[in-house]
Amino acid sequence: MAPAGQAKASDFVDRERLWRRHMDLAAFGATPDGGVRRLAMSDEETEARRQWMRWAVQRGFACSMDPIGNMFVRREGTDPDATPVLSGSHLDSQPSGGRFDGTYGVLAAFEALEAFEDAGIRTRRPIEAVAFTNEEGCRFMPGMTGSRAYLDPTRLPALLELRDDAGISLGEAVLRMREALPELSSRPLGGPVSAFVEAHIEQGPLLEAAGRTVGIVTGIQGTRRFEITVEGEEAHAGTTPRRSRRDAMSAAVAMIVALEKLLHDAEDVCRMTVGRLDVRPNVPSVVPGRVFFTVDFRHPREELIAALGDQVVGICEANRKNCEVTVRQPARTRPIEFSGAVVDAVERACSQLRVPNMRVFSGASHDAQNLFHLAPTGMIFVPCEKGISHNPRENAKPADLYDGARVLADALVELANAM
Amino acid sequence: MAPAGQAKASDFVDRERLWRRHMDLAAFGATPDGGVRRLAMSDEETEARRQWMRWAVQRGFACSMDPIGNMFVRREGTDPDATPVLSGSHLDSQPSGGRFDGTYGVLAAFEALEAFEDAGIRTRRPIEAVAFTNEEGCRFMPGMTGSRAYLDPTRLPALLELRDDAGISLGEAVLRMREALPELSSRPLGGPVSAFVEAHIEQGPLLEAAGRTVGIVTGIQGTRRFEITVEGEEAHAGTTPRRSRRDAMSAAVAMIVALEKLLHDAEDVCRMTVGRLDVRPNVPSVVPGRVFFTVDFRHPREELIAALGDQVVGICEANRKNCEVTVRQPARTRPIEFSGAVVDAVERACSQLRVPNMRVFSGASHDAQNLFHLAPTGMIFVPCEKGISHNPRENAKPADLYDGARVLADALVELANAM
Repeated sequence: MAPAGQAKASDFVDRERLWRRHMDLAAFGATPDGGVRRLAMSDEETEARRQWMRWAVQRGFACSMDPIGNMFVRREGTDPDATPVLSGSHLDSQPSGGRFDGTYGVLAAFEALEAFEDAGIRTRRPIEAVAFTNEEGCRFMPGMTGSRAYLDPTRLPALLELRDDAGISLGEAVLRMREALPELSSRPLGGPVSAFVEAHIEQGPLLEAAGRTVGIVTGIQGTRRFEITVEGEEAHAGTTPRRSRRDAMSAAVAMIVALEKLLHDAEDVCRMTVGRLDVRPNVPSVVPGRVFFTVDFRHPREELIAALGDQVVGICEANRKNCEVTVRQPARTRPIEFSGAVVDAVERACSQLRVPNMRVFSGASHDAQNLFHLAPTGMIFVPCEKGISHNPRENAKPADLYDGARVLADALVELANAM
Repeated sequence: MAPAGQAKASDFVDRERLWRRHMDLAAFGATPDGGVRRLAMSDEETEARRQWMRWAVQRGFACSMDPIGNMFVRREGTDPDATPVLSGSHLDSQPSGGRFDGTYGVLAAFEALEAFEDAGIRTRRPIEAVAFTNEEGCRFMPGMTGSRAYLDPTRLPALLELRDDAGISLGEAVLRMREALPELSSRPLGGPVSAFVEAHIEQGPLLEAAGRTVGIVTGIQGTRRFEITVEGEEAHAGTTPRRSRRDAMSAAVAMIVALEKLLHDAEDVCRMTVGRLDVRPNVPSVVPGRVFFTVDFRHPREELIAALGDQVVGICEANRKNCEVTVRQPARTRPIEFSGAVVDAVERACSQLRVPNMRVFSGASHDAQNLFHLAPTGMIFVPCEKGISHNPRENAKPADLYDGARVLADALVELANAM
């Protein structure tokens, strides 16, 4: 809500500028199919961050980075003692990702800061646009690493030891990125936050189907990620009788089928995905000696996450045939319900701007679920074409991105002036 | 059989030399676990070939290479018009292979040539020890490429176009190896052969279990190799309902289970292996858009190979769910039965040397199945520990390698003096 005598932030959100910035960042890691491959802290992501830093410096904002590689662009408030409002998302992508996932949250927050400058709006609290490190969790597992470390800085040493497939530690990757961006000042990890708002494409089909422009996000479903390693014995495909085999592929396939059955619900609310599967040695004429695969299981209800997820180990054991199996659970997040100041501010901005909206639940994980534990938190969704995401064909309309950013800008003003 | 007045070749086979040469070649591509990683025409295989060439040159043998990279070491006969006897195997290995697979066939043939030199034995026909290109079929698919080209030189252009995972063509790989071994003379592809004998470790458990030193190979089972590509659609693991998914992993797993059922026989004679499976994009939080896998199916009876193999396409179609599936068959070989001059010569050498032997059927494919179509062909198996092969723990006894080489040497003399 614009204080009396002050311009309205949403009036200064620039639709063309916001779209152009998306297209500019999409060039970093652009793939021939129109998508983006911008793995966490790769050269491509580092260059995208550099571009963002240049825009920020042009506007006179301070830019900084913390020890896990989270990057902040800060616009000062009038009260030097006030804790900041944070808004943002991430700039890393899936290996074959799209132009909007994560990027929209960073650019919408940055667009709000630019709109405040253009409008001459002053807020009591500082506002920081943020890009968290390794949200996607595909270069380093588990994901949402930057916001996780922000929430609990004591986990920093362990998180810096995560390694990618090439054996590079997350700590080394942060250092490399840090050295490529020497103009950024350093800041400590974590710190108090007065509120957090994350804008994001929906990554699902609901808003588009309902013809609404903004989703007021009321929560995020819970996730359990399992890593399952099946150890058998390599053997010659032509000479080894079935009964003498310890075939890791055969056992893994039996486990997957049994897990699909366990997590099959008639209501189609359970989300079960085997997204990664690696075979050793992975040649046609050798019986696999080792198969590694992941199970990603999500549900909005914690009691079901618990009850079903707790059966995964037993089902793997029951289907291991004569192989060995180990089940790890590298990540577990509980379902979250947003409420309070942020949801209210977003809802108020929607009605004042008359943006068609609806309440939605997030099927995807987001950095917001870590910030949730620190401060009042909420999210703003905008539609994406056919709900397609984590895909080069991911698409969104300039008008929808614009409306989401307008809602965000007004909500941020309200939150940054709150006591 | 040694002609009257001439030394017996098997008496000059040198057990220590033969073993040492195995250990020397095992250094090229040696892995920390005691195995060998010597992919076809890699730097490691090229260096192994160079070592073999040095040994051959020291003995005054002529060394040459044909356009597919098959390498020959020739000992001349007394009749300049006689077609040669060939004996050998291959020097490439599986990615995590052992020290004997293939190598033994090359070194046993070479040991025979050295024994002939040491004994001063003259044969009517020239004898050539040969290392065929890319037998394993793991760098370039399908395998047995060198012997395939030797059998039918008209296939050379197509085979040179095979590509490895890095996009390098087989033709480029041959050229690179050729340039690293400039001392080799060039020879045309193919040509008449009077007989072919391939010595090899059994890669199965029969000889060891029966306590026999030599297997007289009576045939090779038939193989059908299938490459199955399942195309679905990448989607977000958290937001995409099961009913909206086109999950390539889920469809591939259903196909594999159904194929396992099809190729399950109570007698345990069918060999069915899914040795390779690649997922795209292969990250935990993305529903796989594409899964590629191989099915290796072998059986000694052609009518079963035909009847069961012909059902693979239908079973994949029936289990594709809402994905697309394409089935290719890059390789099909019919079961082969060896008989005639070579099997007789091997059998005769066994009885004269009183080497404990038995008739066995080969579960693995070998270059011999291509040469079979050119000339009388046979194989000599020696035991390997627990039948383990295509594995770093592959092992064989010096005494068994020695006995197999003695049988080979005497058989080669007989074949090289035959009309």
